[in-house]
Amino acid sequence: MNTTPQVLVFDVFGTVVDWHGSIAREIGERFPGVDADAFALAWRAGYQPAMEAVRSGGRGFVKLDVLHREILDEVLQRFGLAHLGEAERAHINRIWHRLAAWPDTVAGLTRLKSRFTICSLSNGNLGLLTDMARHAGLPWDCVLGAEVFRAYKPDPRVYLGAAEVFDLPAQKVMMVAAHQDDLAAARGCGLQTAYVERPLEFGASRVKDVSPDAANTLHARDLLDLADQLGC
Amino acid sequence: MNTTPQVLVFDVFGTVVDWHGSIAREIGERFPGVDADAFALAWRAGYQPAMEAVRSGGRGFVKLDVLHREILDEVLQRFGLAHLGEAERAHINRIWHRLAAWPDTVAGLTRLKSRFTICSLSNGNLGLLTDMARHAGLPWDCVLGAEVFRAYKPDPRVYLGAAEVFDLPAQKVMMVAAHQDDLAAARGCGLQTAYVERPLEFGASRVKDVSPDAANTLHARDLLDLADQLGC
Repeated sequence: MNTTPQVLVFDVFGTVVDWHGSIAREIGERFPGVDADAFALAWRAGYQPAMEAVRSGGRGFVKLDVLHREILDEVLQRFGLAHLGEAERAHINRIWHRLAAWPDTVAGLTRLKSRFTICSLSNGNLGLLTDMARHAGLPWDCVLGAEVFRAYKPDPRVYLGAAEVFDLPAQKVMMVAAHQDDLAAARGCGLQTAYVERPLEFGASRVKDVSPDAANTLHARDLLDLADQLGC
Repeated sequence: MNTTPQVLVFDVFGTVVDWHGSIAREIGERFPGVDADAFALAWRAGYQPAMEAVRSGGRGFVKLDVLHREILDEVLQRFGLAHLGEAERAHINRIWHRLAAWPDTVAGLTRLKSRFTICSLSNGNLGLLTDMARHAGLPWDCVLGAEVFRAYKPDPRVYLGAAEVFDLPAQKVMMVAAHQDDLAAARGCGLQTAYVERPLEFGASRVKDVSPDAANTLHARDLLDLADQLGC
């Protein structure tokens, strides 16, 4: 490592919380006839295209809650749930506010927080991330996200904005994520990067490639391993 | 109370932390010959005029750290400390990042957090508020401030922005502050309001009027009393 970071910023969906497992579980319990695994994947598949409309400038900034809801309305149609009313749709859309942490997350973040400032740096909106932190017990020092910078990752404004919040040169900030593209964009802005293996992000039937990329500053099995490597 | 709030947003300087005591203490220890009480008051006196330049549109949004530093440079001159160099000025400017909590603050916030989402809603910048939370042990669910909304209180964008973050009607949010003008502006935006007595905000030699204003939803002696009144 060139220099010790002062602030660790974390991707959230997939890195800190298990979106696939949480959505599949809740949808499966609510609608026993529905393929809950496919439902979770379909909902998440709409995520990048929806943000791309904002990133490309084709659409002004809108919160992720709004994008999630638009995708949900399409997915419900596709899965034979077009009859659901407004209150139920609104409740389902907030599954993203109550995603479960990975088993190592709370203990890992708590150890990392003893030595570093820890913040979310997610495409989720602030209300979503705050509800999630209360629900899952995530001990953030500060909740940062796309909404603060009015831009979605991998827009450089998000990574550079985080460094600016703390008045730090980019190399004193480390981005932690389970996604190589997120880390590559952070690295392009001068941040240090730590990859976290989350082989089950897309469920047990689609184990994810978690090969190291030597361009990252660190490669960790999980957040406890990251705490070990950072001396916490 | 018309309705139970879901989110409590807090003014910070004076309400949650003791800016006067913290600054006077640190300046007094560092510069024994200086009138530390007068220094603290002079620094704070520059605060409203500096923000007014932004509020009036005469100046684009700049972080409070920057405004604090500009005022500090003048105050140092006035108090015979013009010889201080850049590193020392930068260190002194960050006193605002390490202000001490009032004795009831951490216990009060912890009780309030058990039932409500609790957020700062301060004119301080996010880095300042995050450092302060780590230093003073403030258990915020989310750090919100002027920097998120690119506007300084009492600009309505700050109060309405907080409600929008949580997708709530304004009356489901309660502003908590030791300043009637902050609460009046929040009330003007439809928020509920709770006044907290901080008679020693300006030091023991200038006890502040803490009379109730019947327009507020609640009037509390301190944050423990507020927790009692809100059933936490």
